[in-house]
Amino acid sequence: MNSYAAAVRVGVAGATGYTGVELLRLLSRHPAVQLAAAMGAPGAPPRLVPALKRLWDEPVKGLDLDTLVDRTDAVFLALPEHAAAEIAPSLVDRGKRVFDLSGAFRLRDAGLRRRWYPKTPESGPSVVYGLTEQNRGSLPGSRLVACAGCYPTAAILALQPLLQAGLLDLSGPPLIIDAKSGVSGAGKTPTERTHFSECHGSLSAYGVFDHRHAAEIEQELGTPVTFVPHLLPIDRGILETIYATLKPGIDESAVASALQRAYADSPFVRLTGADLPEIKHVAHTNFCDIGWKVNPHTRQLVLISCIDNLVKGAAGQAVQNFNVAFGFDERLGLN
Amino acid sequence: MNSYAAAVRVGVAGATGYTGVELLRLLSRHPAVQLAAAMGAPGAPPRLVPALKRLWDEPVKGLDLDTLVDRTDAVFLALPEHAAAEIAPSLVDRGKRVFDLSGAFRLRDAGLRRRWYPKTPESGPSVVYGLTEQNRGSLPGSRLVACAGCYPTAAILALQPLLQAGLLDLSGPPLIIDAKSGVSGAGKTPTERTHFSECHGSLSAYGVFDHRHAAEIEQELGTPVTFVPHLLPIDRGILETIYATLKPGIDESAVASALQRAYADSPFVRLTGADLPEIKHVAHTNFCDIGWKVNPHTRQLVLISCIDNLVKGAAGQAVQNFNVAFGFDERLGLN
Amino acid sequence: MNSYAAAVRVGVAGATGYTGVELLRLLSRHPAVQLAAAMGAPGAPPRLVPALKRLWDEPVKGLDLDTLVDRTDAVFLALPEHAAAEIAPSLVDRGKRVFDLSGAFRLRDAGLRRRWYPKTPESGPSVVYGLTEQNRGSLPGSRLVACAGCYPTAAILALQPLLQAGLLDLSGPPLIIDAKSGVSGAGKTPTERTHFSECHGSLSAYGVFDHRHAAEIEQELGTPVTFVPHLLPIDRGILETIYATLKPGIDESAVASALQRAYADSPFVRLTGADLPEIKHVAHTNFCDIGWKVNPHTRQLVLISCIDNLVKGAAGQAVQNFNVAFGFDERLGLN
Amino acid sequence: MNSYAAAVRVGVAGATGYTGVELLRLLSRHPAVQLAAAMGAPGAPPRLVPALKRLWDEPVKGLDLDTLVDRTDAVFLALPEHAAAEIAPSLVDRGKRVFDLSGAFRLRDAGLRRRWYPKTPESGPSVVYGLTEQNRGSLPGSRLVACAGCYPTAAILALQPLLQAGLLDLSGPPLIIDAKSGVSGAGKTPTERTHFSECHGSLSAYGVFDHRHAAEIEQELGTPVTFVPHLLPIDRGILETIYATLKPGIDESAVASALQRAYADSPFVRLTGADLPEIKHVAHTNFCDIGWKVNPHTRQLVLISCIDNLVKGAAGQAVQNFNVAFGFDERLGLN
Repeated sequence: MNSYAAAVRVGVAGATGYTGVELLRLLSRHPAVQLAAAMGAPGAPPRLVPALKRLWDEPVKGLDLDTLVDRTDAVFLALPEHAAAEIAPSLVDRGKRVFDLSGAFRLRDAGLRRRWYPKTPESGPSVVYGLTEQNRGSLPGSRLVACAGCYPTAAILALQPLLQAGLLDLSGPPLIIDAKSGVSGAGKTPTERTHFSECHGSLSAYGVFDHRHAAEIEQELGTPVTFVPHLLPIDRGILETIYATLKPGIDESAVASALQRAYADSPFVRLTGADLPEIKHVAHTNFCDIGWKVNPHTRQLVLISCIDNLVKGAAGQAVQNFNVAFGFDERLGLN
Repeated sequence: MNSYAAAVRVGVAGATGYTGVELLRLLSRHPAVQLAAAMGAPGAPPRLVPALKRLWDEPVKGLDLDTLVDRTDAVFLALPEHAAAEIAPSLVDRGKRVFDLSGAFRLRDAGLRRRWYPKTPESGPSVVYGLTEQNRGSLPGSRLVACAGCYPTAAILALQPLLQAGLLDLSGPPLIIDAKSGVSGAGKTPTERTHFSECHGSLSAYGVFDHRHAAEIEQELGTPVTFVPHLLPIDRGILETIYATLKPGIDESAVASALQRAYADSPFVRLTGADLPEIKHVAHTNFCDIGWKVNPHTRQLVLISCIDNLVKGAAGQAVQNFNVAFGFDERLGLN
Repeated sequence: MNSYAAAVRVGVAGATGYTGVELLRLLSRHPAVQLAAAMGAPGAPPRLVPALKRLWDEPVKGLDLDTLVDRTDAVFLALPEHAAAEIAPSLVDRGKRVFDLSGAFRLRDAGLRRRWYPKTPESGPSVVYGLTEQNRGSLPGSRLVACAGCYPTAAILALQPLLQAGLLDLSGPPLIIDAKSGVSGAGKTPTERTHFSECHGSLSAYGVFDHRHAAEIEQELGTPVTFVPHLLPIDRGILETIYATLKPGIDESAVASALQRAYADSPFVRLTGADLPEIKHVAHTNFCDIGWKVNPHTRQLVLISCIDNLVKGAAGQAVQNFNVAFGFDERLGLN
Repeated sequence: MNSYAAAVRVGVAGATGYTGVELLRLLSRHPAVQLAAAMGAPGAPPRLVPALKRLWDEPVKGLDLDTLVDRTDAVFLALPEHAAAEIAPSLVDRGKRVFDLSGAFRLRDAGLRRRWYPKTPESGPSVVYGLTEQNRGSLPGSRLVACAGCYPTAAILALQPLLQAGLLDLSGPPLIIDAKSGVSGAGKTPTERTHFSECHGSLSAYGVFDHRHAAEIEQELGTPVTFVPHLLPIDRGILETIYATLKPGIDESAVASALQRAYADSPFVRLTGADLPEIKHVAHTNFCDIGWKVNPHTRQLVLISCIDNLVKGAAGQAVQNFNVAFGFDERLGLN
């Protein structure tokens, strides 16, 4: 299938979780990629992936670092954070370019990193934060890309242009991000919280004032947020409802202009204005859809930002980062 | 089945919609009620209710006002608002006690009423707003009870005690109510918005800055709110995530005390504190579950309030209002 | 709440699973019951049941046999089968009347029992099979009732009257029961199979030619069946589509008559004829709805039988058995 | 995006329904296709397709036959059957190659056609039945392809090889096909049956002994079937559980061999043997997954066949037919 002269040899570590399977699905048909290795977590028993029959028929075995190094130029890590924290530096040392989806390398502040990702080494290779639209310029030279978290992706894409344009009144309470996510965001390990009968027909909030994605959002936006995630009875997709106050004199058209300017050259951000986005329209795609409404009397701005948590919030964005890092068209393998 | 000496003869108008069926279900086993009439909307063709076979086996025919007046002492209206607006005053004039679930009589301000419920007559019988926990004292003498809306019920029960205790800092932006509702809240008439394939696996916001329940909430709370409802891919249940700022010096224990004091004698409000409520635990019940978390650094308060929109948000609350209005135990027929 | 002179003191063992919670919900408002004990599995840590706050506020502790014996006259066992197999005989020996929901005592054939319920003792107290409609006469004197399984309840109620009336042609292949069940039938312990993301938007068959409920159905019907269960992406409810061949000369009216005769005095069986039943209409009720269609050209009969697996398929039927066993109205506490 | 020298100019009529949108999604990234026209039903108002923003940004207007003829070489019809019945012959007359997804041209028997598709003209262009795996040889010369129905696709792919190999005992009752479909199979027009609150948490059978897909299956298989479809509370996907009796002496390995032989060169049929397929693994793909189990004692065979009703059951299969008809690799644009 491969049509590029010099395909990049790529490996996936952690290939049997939801994010890993999505990576295999995308990479197995990526025209500039030779999918050279798909491994599970260290010590994991071999496992077939029925959904990928005819795309990837080999059993996925536990991680074997030497083989991974031998066979690949670039590695995607869809591992638990402690495993990623350990393996990523070794891979970089041995000359691989690494795209980590685990979170282990996202936070720059040492204190926050110790609190939320205690297994991450204090020092190590330099890291590029992997939100493609924000860091396109830094990706080409990167060795280790810390792909952005799912909740942060939707929040930062919606808010960053407005903050940079200075449109938001930050003198009051923190920005509010009311986030709703499908259950696949919690991973593939069965728990009571993600048991079908507990989720079906229900909705619940969790991690209020106590979620590491709040720290990641605050790091990137540079302003405090109140972040409340909810577990939605769907498989995939995130919708965030974001509440902010506009500065006096700022109206809807200024909001629209700032967003349009920011994303004029971004193929995966779709601005929907007052036609508010829905999860259905982004599921199984790499799009981030952003809509908004303004109440001119109260200066209240409501932003709605939607992504598929497994694509733009994980595997798709990692591939998008890979494309930019290796100089390919950003969209390759993603539409 | 009936064990009370003098049962109240009760009728339901609009008995084939989701709220109407829920009313029949509750009233048909209410020990102090004789369910004397179940009618559809005016002009509706006769229709059986398969879910209620053995509880209510007669076909539900279109509304016949004279028969309704003859057979009943009290009438529940689960009609479209324009039909309720027309019928309720006649029923009151002819000596019936009326419990209206339509919304037509909820707003007191003439301007707002004209905007949101244009068919409601400018003058008419005096109205008691039917949120039982708030208006217990006014219900016994009532002729026309405007049962509270589903979204307002969850919002007002969570916020009113804190406002009355003066705990909230109202100097900043409006209170924020991020509301998520099951699809039965949109009624039984098929639309593209409520088509299964449009809702399943999705989530969407609607009515932003433009929903009549915002007016109802503001009327009862006496303070502006930013209200954003979402359509949740479940059948029944509402969860509202409410954001407010506490006054300086107010802590979590003050919040807890105010709520505990307010609901010490309310059998259907359950306070869950930091164990945040979930829709699953209130579905098919008349409970309103309220939980909360406080961030002492930012003085941000997050309240979570859950109800079943068809029970505490509609039919159950109407029966609860009926119980208090007729001097029965508030819980009769509701557990 | 209790209005009967001499309430039966009742205990529930295994009160935190889905069936156990449903039992507590039903028994806590049963007018002839004093709910005297709610215990978990042996060795289980204490646990609150948030859904039952205000109905049952005590923490549910691990099973304590002596206390259970002291406090109760009758015990409902919603335990794993090995625990039920051990405890039920002791309770009977100590004079308690036992309603077991685990399956451990359902099979009468020693070989089948050894295969499907290996922990069940070879000998022990005499057992009544607890499908109320079938064994009403045997329940009053019972000491140990083996409440019918969920799948068997729906299948036997639909087929038994037709077999007893001799309407079915059994000369060809076995009767076919294509069964679909909500996920709560698999219990509360999280597994990959019942993980939300695995079930949502999916459907799968399991246990083909290898499910113990097939043995139970064959025992009661006295004829072989091909039984294929499927895991349905809903929380509660079973629908079975049953395929049989009518004897020559038997038509739809003979089918209807046989079923009507069989269930003339059964308040919880609703016959819907050609208006085929749906899970929605039986969810959260103790009804079994049965509909049917006949193709006169091929003599094929299709029966549709629906129950709520946690009510008529478990807790509700156990209470119905209890009512008959203790001489109460069969419907007490169940509508 | 287009990399083929001479792309085929393609049009879609009926582009705003679920099948039409899926066609646009597939065709807009098909490397040998120039998507030249996307039109709605005749007389339909212009409509944007939010899910396809960035893929197809033009409003979809009502059908304009002349423009369609001018701009295209091949046309996909995703129209209601009466519109397809009228338009398809005109398009063929004017030299277009037509892929009809409506059903209007599937049945060959004049009587059955009159009963199930009364608007289809009695005579007209010759038709190829478009189940790719079955009719690969006839597609290259075709003018009008009647793409196979969703239910028939899953049933025929599972049963045809076994019938052709003579493995099934057809002396008893008809083959039984217990089919379960996601709601998108019912189309995009809202009805009470497909209203979210009616489907969520429920399951129902419909069209028993009275569904035109039974006629289509019987036409292709040449043997009678008992076909019972059910409406599943998911958006997309079909699972069929098929019951047959093997001839004496036929065992599981003969079943396996016949299926393996039949599909050795079929990239979109995946045989899973005793690991029974699940809808989850075929959703959003063009695969048909087929698994099976045999009970040697009763000679009963259970086949499980799964497809995505909108892909292999509609748009994907139409594209697969197009690929073969135009001499492209069967997989083009489909993985």
